[in-house]
Amino acid sequence: MPRRSPAGEESPGPGRPATSYDVARLAGVSQSAVSRCFNPGASISARTRAKILRAANALGYRPNAIARGLITRRSNMVAVVITNLTNMVYPEVLFHLNQRLVERRIHLLLFTLGHERNVAEILEEVWQYRVDGVVAAAHFSTGQIEACRARRLPIVFYNRSSDSPYVASVCCDHERGERELVDRLVRSGHRHFVLLSGPAESEVSRLRTRGAIDAIERTAGLSYELLEGDYTYSCGRARADQIAAMKRRPDAVICANDNLAMGCMDGLRHAHGLAIPRDLSVTGFDGVTAAEWGSYDLTTVRQPAERMVEAAVDMLLERIENPDLPAEARVFAGALRIGSSARFDGPARRL
Amino acid sequence: MPRRSPAGEESPGPGRPATSYDVARLAGVSQSAVSRCFNPGASISARTRAKILRAANALGYRPNAIARGLITRRSNMVAVVITNLTNMVYPEVLFHLNQRLVERRIHLLLFTLGHERNVAEILEEVWQYRVDGVVAAAHFSTGQIEACRARRLPIVFYNRSSDSPYVASVCCDHERGERELVDRLVRSGHRHFVLLSGPAESEVSRLRTRGAIDAIERTAGLSYELLEGDYTYSCGRARADQIAAMKRRPDAVICANDNLAMGCMDGLRHAHGLAIPRDLSVTGFDGVTAAEWGSYDLTTVRQPAERMVEAAVDMLLERIENPDLPAEARVFAGALRIGSSARFDGPARRL
Repeated sequence: MPRRSPAGEESPGPGRPATSYDVARLAGVSQSAVSRCFNPGASISARTRAKILRAANALGYRPNAIARGLITRRSNMVAVVITNLTNMVYPEVLFHLNQRLVERRIHLLLFTLGHERNVAEILEEVWQYRVDGVVAAAHFSTGQIEACRARRLPIVFYNRSSDSPYVASVCCDHERGERELVDRLVRSGHRHFVLLSGPAESEVSRLRTRGAIDAIERTAGLSYELLEGDYTYSCGRARADQIAAMKRRPDAVICANDNLAMGCMDGLRHAHGLAIPRDLSVTGFDGVTAAEWGSYDLTTVRQPAERMVEAAVDMLLERIENPDLPAEARVFAGALRIGSSARFDGPARRL
Repeated sequence: MPRRSPAGEESPGPGRPATSYDVARLAGVSQSAVSRCFNPGASISARTRAKILRAANALGYRPNAIARGLITRRSNMVAVVITNLTNMVYPEVLFHLNQRLVERRIHLLLFTLGHERNVAEILEEVWQYRVDGVVAAAHFSTGQIEACRARRLPIVFYNRSSDSPYVASVCCDHERGERELVDRLVRSGHRHFVLLSGPAESEVSRLRTRGAIDAIERTAGLSYELLEGDYTYSCGRARADQIAAMKRRPDAVICANDNLAMGCMDGLRHAHGLAIPRDLSVTGFDGVTAAEWGSYDLTTVRQPAERMVEAAVDMLLERIENPDLPAEARVFAGALRIGSSARFDGPARRL
């Protein structure tokens, strides 16, 4: 069937999209005028521009963003590297990220890390697509960071910090958030704690745990026990059995994220008949959607995800303009969410 | 600072990535041989290929996927158009989709639909990037489908069906799944139902509700009441107040998705002291992760999301090869998940 442009005219030929040559011919201008018309910032008279837009519209012509990228040396694409976990915990991070990028007319090329693929392979592909920059919620080695630097490819890490002098990062202040949360529990009379951590290799979990220990060790006579976890609901559920069997039952279980806390609450309540917070308090970290649901009403530290995403996009775009900007870390305070999962005295206050 | 290739040699110049010309010079071959070497399917001798790969490696040369796309007329990118809701309910759909595409060396360009942006604007951008195809979990008008067809741009709809003769779609059998679920409730002695629907404009909700009504109307003496909802937890929570205040309390609340069901359960239990399923049964649809959590243990119909994603990718790639393939709808049965949220007699069976 013959192609028709939206306006209804016959298009240049069946199956062939209109080219800038077709537009130039119909508008009676040069091909370079057509190219200037569709390149933001290029100089062109209002009259020529109007003629070209009329012709482009009649032919259903769309400037080819990719070909344009070869001229401007920008692809107007940003790679986002996330892990399965990032997306499960924060589906809205990816959504906000895309919305903020699209507002700047930049598109998001998605790279997901499963168990079977590693960052090295993904980087080869990132380079092939000549993206303008990378937002990474994943661990990059120093060598990988250097290799991006050598290509003058800016990276912003999301919720990871890095010692590299080359990278920008956006983080929630995990350590301070957890310290202030646990400090409130101490002041509310909790004396013996279980700390349920994330996986050993998680820097974020290490920071949260350190914040909790700081708060506990400030006051004499308090004690804690550390259990290793893996950030999942099912791990929290399994650790509940261990906690219920402990000789000395803790007053509070401090979980390194909300998923662990919700699994732990379900186990303590439904498998062991314990009442929360009467028998013991349970807290999380992150402020995921389900933490507010009636079955959990979790006391947790909410990360300001929307604000963090905005900062990440700002930092990346600045560095696409100028790759020589110095490294910068932007750290955002979390907000205490007081739910009924922990026994707390006194009113809520922002951390 | 001078760029260094991974192998440590000086690169062609500071800040300048190696080009195919540099590789050709070092390997002592023509530029067209270099181009053939990196184009899958192009003919080249094993000896020449080895020479080129050695030179490319020494120079840190990466073939430019975008420039290659201009030759092959393929961008090797697929646009995925999703709404906020799709991603919240199924973060794993996007993850699986990307994994399946990457296996075929195709990349995912993400387009999200917020309230403020509509499909028309997004389509302009999709066309600009000359993607090879589109996976859409969003509503397209007939005109928009025609416009893609005119550009020979294949689309596969995910969990949407379409009357257009031009499109392929992958769906869960919503109507049948809900009919078989409610049929089981009827056979287990439930007599009076509340159907809590999704938003009025949702085709998926309409199908699920129709399946439920079918099952109820098959048996004489049963009755139901229809309440409109919007697929969110908070709506389910609010409808629980209405349901608890009803003169005749239903035996079962059939919710159009899991989020509604979980909100409804929390409201019925925590605000109205009702026991589930002793006082009434509650069911959902989708099989989201949280449906299996101990606080809910929801009876629901699980969509085979991984299988559906695989089918969507297969159908799209076939149509990228041959845009003239006829329309096709692939419909997958859901799997009944029996939890403790509904009073059920007899063993589980696959729908």
